[in-house]
Amino acid sequence: MPVLTRPVLEINLPALLDNYYNLQKLAPNAIAAAVVKDDAYGLGAEEVSAYLYKYGNCRHFFVAHAVEGANIRSQIPEAIIYVLQGMGDDNVSLFKRYNLTPVISSSEQLIFWKQNRITDIKPVVHIETGLNRLGFREQDLAGLSTEDIAGFGLVMSHLACADVCGHFMNVKQLDNFIRLRNQYFKDIPASLSASDGVFLGEEYHFDMVRLGAAMYGINTAPNRPNTMKAIVTVKAPVLEIAPLAQGEYVGYSATYRADTQRNIAIVSIGYGDGYPRSLSNVGKVYLHKNHQRSEIRVIGRVSMDNLICDVTGISNIEVGDMVNILDDTYTLDNIGQDAGTISYEILSRIGKNTRFERRYLK
Amino acid sequence: MPVLTRPVLEINLPALLDNYYNLQKLAPNAIAAAVVKDDAYGLGAEEVSAYLYKYGNCRHFFVAHAVEGANIRSQIPEAIIYVLQGMGDDNVSLFKRYNLTPVISSSEQLIFWKQNRITDIKPVVHIETGLNRLGFREQDLAGLSTEDIAGFGLVMSHLACADVCGHFMNVKQLDNFIRLRNQYFKDIPASLSASDGVFLGEEYHFDMVRLGAAMYGINTAPNRPNTMKAIVTVKAPVLEIAPLAQGEYVGYSATYRADTQRNIAIVSIGYGDGYPRSLSNVGKVYLHKNHQRSEIRVIGRVSMDNLICDVTGISNIEVGDMVNILDDTYTLDNIGQDAGTISYEILSRIGKNTRFERRYLK
Repeated sequence: MPVLTRPVLEINLPALLDNYYNLQKLAPNAIAAAVVKDDAYGLGAEEVSAYLYKYGNCRHFFVAHAVEGANIRSQIPEAIIYVLQGMGDDNVSLFKRYNLTPVISSSEQLIFWKQNRITDIKPVVHIETGLNRLGFREQDLAGLSTEDIAGFGLVMSHLACADVCGHFMNVKQLDNFIRLRNQYFKDIPASLSASDGVFLGEEYHFDMVRLGAAMYGINTAPNRPNTMKAIVTVKAPVLEIAPLAQGEYVGYSATYRADTQRNIAIVSIGYGDGYPRSLSNVGKVYLHKNHQRSEIRVIGRVSMDNLICDVTGISNIEVGDMVNILDDTYTLDNIGQDAGTISYEILSRIGKNTRFERRYLK
Repeated sequence: MPVLTRPVLEINLPALLDNYYNLQKLAPNAIAAAVVKDDAYGLGAEEVSAYLYKYGNCRHFFVAHAVEGANIRSQIPEAIIYVLQGMGDDNVSLFKRYNLTPVISSSEQLIFWKQNRITDIKPVVHIETGLNRLGFREQDLAGLSTEDIAGFGLVMSHLACADVCGHFMNVKQLDNFIRLRNQYFKDIPASLSASDGVFLGEEYHFDMVRLGAAMYGINTAPNRPNTMKAIVTVKAPVLEIAPLAQGEYVGYSATYRADTQRNIAIVSIGYGDGYPRSLSNVGKVYLHKNHQRSEIRVIGRVSMDNLICDVTGISNIEVGDMVNILDDTYTLDNIGQDAGTISYEILSRIGKNTRFERRYLK
């Protein structure tokens, strides 16, 4: 057996592309933009953007911050890069240098834009329809001049409850969006839905859908089976296997005590790698070996670099084995649920470290 | 007012150095090693290591993974870099290239070391004393040869409950450590304590203490007042301020409903920046303005890039203001407690993104 120390993060780019195509098929009349903010939800915005640009012919990308747009520009030279948090004193130079397109959500940002316009860039106007997050409120729209409005390249809003088909908020926001668009932005292309909204039906698609979570394999409609492919696998090596005598304690603060003699394995992944500490005494990892899948329970506190698990009765586990932390069977959605959060947060955390060996399947 | 979009992470290196010195004073006869694993708990291992090396004369550094050692080597050319997860097939080339010192925790790793020895490197032997995580078990130690033992430069173990002075585990582990050291490693320098162990008294100090959490300002003895300085400040800009009508909902899944007319602010930080989603409807942020500190409640779900908060009655808040997410008053320990986790996990997450503007006070 090899001696291994390092967790591995595998990102299946062809599966991501399949998800992109399948979402696109559900919204065939809309432009399929890719949401690659937060470093493509932790999976590497450069690699993800380059792949979608090259193989998916994607030409519209959304990031949250200008610095994220700057980081991917060289990979997607001809694309439009929309920056959701908008333009300000702390990033205007990046907008100019990397030819980024601001999403304008407030009067303050609009004034700033007019003072710092970039030739050939048509900004997006973001309007509030019920999420009560970013966006022009209805009462602000009357203040827009005809010239302001003519300058926008896209009008967008964002749904609060698109993960639940039939939620009253969806219809309310759709009605608000149509009404405000007709009143102020009649001739401007429109975008309301992220990937969860794609599943709500054609009336939610307008001219552009913004594909993020579902493209990354997350089930954005938890009440229905996931139709997307899992694209992320995380594995970590077993560093050590040892007996644990009855009455012994495991991990920080001695939260686990062995009622009987056990065997334990020390695995090289912890909350420093984005594995949630809330999975202390709760998490599950999986050994795939000799065509068998064995479920293994995490015991004791998850620490920064390691977790400890109970491998009593799993006779074929050895030092150097890789155990699966998440895969296409124990998915992001499963681990999110077990950890008391959502898969989005898990994904965003998992990719945020430099200790993984990162493998892109291409 | 400026228009701002980007959260800011400030790291006070002189305060970190003060913490390092103050911990050193508590253990004056021990070498003060710095623990800079997990990218110095997210604060930037290169900057932190370089500063401690240059101004603190620190020459012993602990990382978890070889890749972390490789990343800091150029900053600390003459230092010993100990790698806690050990040496294996997946990192041996980094050990050789960057002159790293493995911590050997198992028979498998010892065999690997003997096959891949590096001239002039004396590895650390890690022994188990009660945490039941990494380390040689007592029954394995009898298998070590005299030559194996003579080759080690340090014998170490790690405490499970050092955050609680008087915990029965501390004495148990101390006794085990002394007994095993006397039996097997009599002439080899020893290290038992991380920063929490420093506060347990001189008998826990041995020849080296490994300073991590407390140096970063975390209170490692939560039952006592923190004697360390806070070294981290996180601020995020207000992107937008808007009225919220009675009956309106806020954020994903509409988890907050306004019973009365409110004013809300949209702040540019979210779980993508390491702000815990578990602070949805629970978190607090702070406005410092005109010599006043106002507490502001987070309402609705925390999303990836933003949080929303209730600023009703805070008449002086404006778009472009920076609110404090954590500082020396609302500390890492406070936010950890509110989020249902420990400050270590918060710190490790906060620093793991490239969207912050990162400022080092030097």
